[in-house]
Amino acid sequence: MFDYKLLSALAAVVEQAGFERAAQVLGLSQSAISQRIKLLEARVGQPVLVRVTPPAPTEIGRRLLNHVQQVRLLERDLQTLVPALDEEGLPERLRIALNADSLATWWAAAVSDFCAEQHLLLDLVVEDQTVGLKRMRAGEVAACICASERPVAGARSVLLGAMRYRALASPAFIARHFPEGVRADLLAKTPALVFGPDDFLQHRYLASLGVDGGFEHHLCPSSEGFIRLTEAGLGWGLVPELQVREQLERGVLVELLPDKPIDVPLYWHHWRNGGQLLGLLTDQLVRSSKQWLVPWKQP
Amino acid sequence: MFDYKLLSALAAVVEQAGFERAAQVLGLSQSAISQRIKLLEARVGQPVLVRVTPPAPTEIGRRLLNHVQQVRLLERDLQTLVPALDEEGLPERLRIALNADSLATWWAAAVSDFCAEQHLLLDLVVEDQTVGLKRMRAGEVAACICASERPVAGARSVLLGAMRYRALASPAFIARHFPEGVRADLLAKTPALVFGPDDFLQHRYLASLGVDGGFEHHLCPSSEGFIRLTEAGLGWGLVPELQVREQLERGVLVELLPDKPIDVPLYWHHWRNGGQLLGLLTDQLVRSSKQWLVPWKQP
Repeated sequence: MFDYKLLSALAAVVEQAGFERAAQVLGLSQSAISQRIKLLEARVGQPVLVRVTPPAPTEIGRRLLNHVQQVRLLERDLQTLVPALDEEGLPERLRIALNADSLATWWAAAVSDFCAEQHLLLDLVVEDQTVGLKRMRAGEVAACICASERPVAGARSVLLGAMRYRALASPAFIARHFPEGVRADLLAKTPALVFGPDDFLQHRYLASLGVDGGFEHHLCPSSEGFIRLTEAGLGWGLVPELQVREQLERGVLVELLPDKPIDVPLYWHHWRNGGQLLGLLTDQLVRSSKQWLVPWKQP
Repeated sequence: MFDYKLLSALAAVVEQAGFERAAQVLGLSQSAISQRIKLLEARVGQPVLVRVTPPAPTEIGRRLLNHVQQVRLLERDLQTLVPALDEEGLPERLRIALNADSLATWWAAAVSDFCAEQHLLLDLVVEDQTVGLKRMRAGEVAACICASERPVAGARSVLLGAMRYRALASPAFIARHFPEGVRADLLAKTPALVFGPDDFLQHRYLASLGVDGGFEHHLCPSSEGFIRLTEAGLGWGLVPELQVREQLERGVLVELLPDKPIDVPLYWHHWRNGGQLLGLLTDQLVRSSKQWLVPWKQP
């Protein structure tokens, strides 16, 4: 079998984003961690880590991490039978990548009772819904929420529903930029809000209106900040309906063009051999997400 | 003088997080970008980029980026006089690192009019208030908000005020974990919420109560998600008072121990030779931040 002392050192360095914190978490010296990584590399015959800040796994390092994560989940099922087997004695954790908008809206309500009952701690990683799958493939997370259906090798995906986005702006912004009413061709010339370089929702919205090419935009990688900037009139942007019901009712935010939502499907991806806990969490999410998400229809 | 065609290729690759997007933004082919980077490295005599995803600047690469950012800000002051000098013709942008909690609360209201008047687009980067300074040092941002006063070389810092945090939980969480009232020693044994590996606020709070060492916690790197998880009863956490006034009034969130806030100072760091625009933004922030921040007193 593999030497899991070496593998868990690798996992700790990547998960804790450094040798120092990895050493703290595992209760070892920093040089002991370094030695384990070196020994692992000697056995594997190639580097498992790129020594940047934070340390990044190499291709083979990612495959090893993936394996560690799956083994950990399988171990959990045995722990109720043989609790003494867990040498590290760390509390139960699941590392999950999800989009900022889910985290800012329905996620907490969907999982809170489950976490309390199972005494489960979450390591949440915020990733755009289009890129969370990279974290799965890299073996850095046990599950992820993303907009793409196709699972990575060894994983399964299940549809949770869709988040509905509406293109919104403040009444003052609309009055300033569109005194004669909102026109699609002018929209590309007024500042938009974009979550980050991986966020193409605003591009898709403009494309759906027949407007192609670039447009002026602020970058704001925060779900709540995005809404604050929209309210303050810095730009227009696509915002989850769930998050701004109150602002829409009060008229603090207004839809640019009436009833032109964009729905984004959310799929839950999880390791196929992820053990009982991940299976139970999957059931819980499938059952409860319908309360917040709209049904997804392929356009 | 330096060859700024080469330097702006480096800046674009780092800012756009890849060669492909850098090529799009500069209107060049990807191979032209690669050639410019190689030529730059030949002249510098060492690598300026680590070829990971996204590409990361080396030590010397960071110094060059820092220089590019300062030159760009100085150019801006001349552009009203000689607009034709700007070859790239890109819209005016400022890249600023700030903490998620500022972005989720007061930031938008403080800068929105300024951005509209100056026709300024913001590239916001979310960094914990303790680490934003690293981005300044790396030359990746023109300014940052952080908790430390000491500026990096070539920059200046000014105190904006302090954010007041309160340790909060849901009434159900308190009833479940503290049926006989909140006790500091039990607090370390109930799940806390921590923003990320650089967030030591909860540690400081426990230390101020005489509790040292580790504690159970979820990791949630989202300001809004943090509050959703607290409301849903997944854990207790330190939350900006500004962000939860309404929840405190309604009793949806409750302070764990009465009137034990933690204040975190926020300093605005900006390049000393940052040009007029950065100076005006600094004046605007100093003037307006007092509306939302509390006065800072060194403890």
